[in-house]
Amino acid sequence: MIMKIPIYILTLLLIISAFQSTAQISTKPDKGNWSKGAPERFKGDVWVEYFINDTISDFVSSRVLFEPGARSNWHKHSGKQIVFAVEGEGYLKEKGKPITLLKKGDVVVIEPGTIHSHGSINQRFTQGIMMNDVGKKETTTWLNPVLEEELLEKE
Amino acid sequence: MIMKIPIYILTLLLIISAFQSTAQISTKPDKGNWSKGAPERFKGDVWVEYFINDTISDFVSSRVLFEPGARSNWHKHSGKQIVFAVEGEGYLKEKGKPITLLKKGDVVVIEPGTIHSHGSINQRFTQGIMMNDVGKKETTTWLNPVLEEELLEKE
Repeated sequence: MIMKIPIYILTLLLIISAFQSTAQISTKPDKGNWSKGAPERFKGDVWVEYFINDTISDFVSSRVLFEPGARSNWHKHSGKQIVFAVEGEGYLKEKGKPITLLKKGDVVVIEPGTIHSHGSINQRFTQGIMMNDVGKKETTTWLNPVLEEELLEKE
Repeated sequence: MIMKIPIYILTLLLIISAFQSTAQISTKPDKGNWSKGAPERFKGDVWVEYFINDTISDFVSSRVLFEPGARSNWHKHSGKQIVFAVEGEGYLKEKGKPITLLKKGDVVVIEPGTIHSHGSINQRFTQGIMMNDVGKKETTTWLNPVLEEELLEKE
């Protein structure tokens, strides 16, 4: 089930997560071939595990782990991105749309060129990813960090 | 775009694929860590590449390549399965529903416990997979082979 979060709850969670993210030190997850998300692309501690990046067959598969309060910058992909919520709770925020809370088992499809951000609000969150149109130079275009108030925007 | 195929076109394609599948010898795809699909689970030549099977985080990621005319037996999963059409054209047939043709970029979600079959009709087809609820003994329950006439059934 994909839920819209009431604004007051989201505000409270964002305040809690701001305290949490300063208090925690993230260590690399135990199992898997994780690499740290670059600070120019992510706020907080984010770990990425690429399973395959096949530009011939046009297919990327990966998963991304967000520590509590961590999130991506605004970005967009040249192709379609499928997000599968694996563990914990997180969010998808598309520019111009209300934030969507993602819980284990939720699936969302992000259309090519849609500016968006993924992340955690106050829990560790892991998402599985599949993506196509990955042969271009700029498969992902990275943009500005996401401000707390932008997460709360309804549009 | 996910399409329903007119029955007469599907019948013609199935006849062509029957000739093709006897005439071709499948070789392991060049790149990747592919293993041959077991004949008690698949008709024709099918190759499977597991990226991760993480029963702790509850996440499987893989891709499956069907040579022309190849297909899976009927089966069902304990969890949710997301299918992303990567290359070529193939199908998803859920028991009780008309067949759905899948083309590059199409996404379908198969709900837990739904009896279904994936495969090619007359082209090589590759699909990306994500799945959850994978910690159980019977993550996938394999059933009977799928007959041509079952693919044509509207229900």
